[in-house]
Amino acid sequence: MRVAVIGTGLIGTSVALALREHGVSVWLADSDPEAARLAANLGAGVPLPDPGPETGPEIGPEIGRADVAVIAVPPSAVAATLAAAQARGLASCYTDVASVKQLPVSQARALGCDMTSYVPGHPLAGREKHGPAAARADLFLGRTWALCPAPETSEQAVDTITTLVRTCGAVPVRTDAAAHDRWVALVSHAPHLVAAAMAARCEAAPAEALDLAGQGLRDVTRIAAGDTGLWTQILAANAEPVAEVLAAVAADLAEAARMLTEGDPKSVATLLDIGQAGVARIPGKHGGAPREFTAVQVVIRDQPGELTRLFDAAGRAGVNIEDVRIEHSPGLPVGVAELSVRPAEAGPLLAALEAGGWPVRR
Amino acid sequence: MRVAVIGTGLIGTSVALALREHGVSVWLADSDPEAARLAANLGAGVPLPDPGPETGPEIGPEIGRADVAVIAVPPSAVAATLAAAQARGLASCYTDVASVKQLPVSQARALGCDMTSYVPGHPLAGREKHGPAAARADLFLGRTWALCPAPETSEQAVDTITTLVRTCGAVPVRTDAAAHDRWVALVSHAPHLVAAAMAARCEAAPAEALDLAGQGLRDVTRIAAGDTGLWTQILAANAEPVAEVLAAVAADLAEAARMLTEGDPKSVATLLDIGQAGVARIPGKHGGAPREFTAVQVVIRDQPGELTRLFDAAGRAGVNIEDVRIEHSPGLPVGVAELSVRPAEAGPLLAALEAGGWPVRR
Repeated sequence: MRVAVIGTGLIGTSVALALREHGVSVWLADSDPEAARLAANLGAGVPLPDPGPETGPEIGPEIGRADVAVIAVPPSAVAATLAAAQARGLASCYTDVASVKQLPVSQARALGCDMTSYVPGHPLAGREKHGPAAARADLFLGRTWALCPAPETSEQAVDTITTLVRTCGAVPVRTDAAAHDRWVALVSHAPHLVAAAMAARCEAAPAEALDLAGQGLRDVTRIAAGDTGLWTQILAANAEPVAEVLAAVAADLAEAARMLTEGDPKSVATLLDIGQAGVARIPGKHGGAPREFTAVQVVIRDQPGELTRLFDAAGRAGVNIEDVRIEHSPGLPVGVAELSVRPAEAGPLLAALEAGGWPVRR
Repeated sequence: MRVAVIGTGLIGTSVALALREHGVSVWLADSDPEAARLAANLGAGVPLPDPGPETGPEIGPEIGRADVAVIAVPPSAVAATLAAAQARGLASCYTDVASVKQLPVSQARALGCDMTSYVPGHPLAGREKHGPAAARADLFLGRTWALCPAPETSEQAVDTITTLVRTCGAVPVRTDAAAHDRWVALVSHAPHLVAAAMAARCEAAPAEALDLAGQGLRDVTRIAAGDTGLWTQILAANAEPVAEVLAAVAADLAEAARMLTEGDPKSVATLLDIGQAGVARIPGKHGGAPREFTAVQVVIRDQPGELTRLFDAAGRAGVNIEDVRIEHSPGLPVGVAELSVRPAEAGPLLAALEAGGWPVRR
């Protein structure tokens, strides 16, 4: 399979990396050439040659036409990008990854795009970071990927895109664009604004109050760090279903505030109980094979060269550190580094670090 | 130091485990003897002997009096437990771990407790799981631990509890009970109800909708899985400050719903922007003031020694890497290391890494 990825942000580059792992040839393009170059440096594929003025139906004489073009641009840019790619004859079939589906479908139809070769799609995966550097080949492992073919879409195109989704490790779910948009309003778009509204209360809060923040506040507000421009587009394109969920959440919170003020905590308990039942219904991060690493904690001093010595000791023991997280308490002369390694390498790492005088903990 | 932990739930057992790691002698008690036994089996200490009818001021003839009693029971039970422990002469000084501070302080005063030996406390750490089996010795590492001494509290008692907090690896922060309660309303109690209200929308949602849920919804709603009984107590004990935050969040969400319905996404963008600014102010895991770092991204190969060479190059340039995050795509030969450094050191680091042949991006 040969795939062109148009838009090398977080999602486009992650698709490209996932496909590259399965030997798929990938071409990369982005309106920001630096983003495409970084994606290429990460091993996501090769930059798509500039079409130039006399472009024919092929990417280049030596390359030919792609089997699939993945359009990974913001929702309101999907239709125009699809029209341009189809005019250029870039690929045999097309998909997109936008978080709303009715808008790009209706715009594509209005622009006269060929709908038989277009399979609207939406991988339910993301991160609060964006850009190619945040991309991960395993972003879609075990995740749902909605496919919302239009009535005109050919089954052949659906089959091809279904194969691409499976190659990325995701689970294809076929639905229609209207149901998709209603459902993601509940599970993705409304939660984003709820997180933003909670985070907004922290914007002018005393620093001493925020010093008391624990993991709970960080989790509730994490996604509010997302890109405002992109999210405004998404919310505007799915306004009615999102507004419906938000109005219900707002009413419950206003009622909880009233009940607390009136000293009626029993009714607050009812909301907590319903919330608990709701959480229990949300599926976990299913499928996919999370890699099993063993964490080794080591106390380090906060000084230049300390990490070098640590990694040097690990390297000399032949241990490849897969991930590292460092926890510092400001003002304290030490921190804790948590090193993730393959289970078989935890023993040698512990021995090497202990021999080097570091306090360690498995 | 010899410590008695009264209440071997998540927090009490975690305190005990953290103290045991530093060789502290710990006695355990719980109204549920099975919970105390499980905590003892986990290595958290030894069960406190039953006082019996003729109890004197000592735990037992062979043990003597504890230096500290940590009262780790629900907020409304703190004062009575403190009074009983003081009547028994269990310890030289006392602290609690309840999430609200004005309620136990006023109740303890009303019960005639000795306030000079009581240092009200609150570790800002927790999990959505509860019970001794969920306890972790590292639960408090780098976390803030509020201490709210009353005017009568002796400095000697404060010193002793401060030592205990530091022994658990936490960062003590001294404040007064009223300010504490106002601040945790914002950073802990209101977020809990916001998570519950969002989760409540999922309680009766179609399963197909929940199948589309990603990590965002899971994070926003995670803490709503907490214990309803405990949280109802906490919210009731801090009703006014919590209600104030909730009313403001509810108003913002109701307004966002209205603006979306009226097709005015620009005002939604304002809420998203304020939310983004709010998230940015929440300190990371290490607590304390957020330190301003610049992130440098560098593409690395997945092989032993690569990180050593990287840190070595940074060290030779005199740059202290404050934090590092590594993103790997499984199976790919490269990853991205994100290095956090003081802004003034970003330039020298970029130059050093580029000279070493690494592809970098600021």
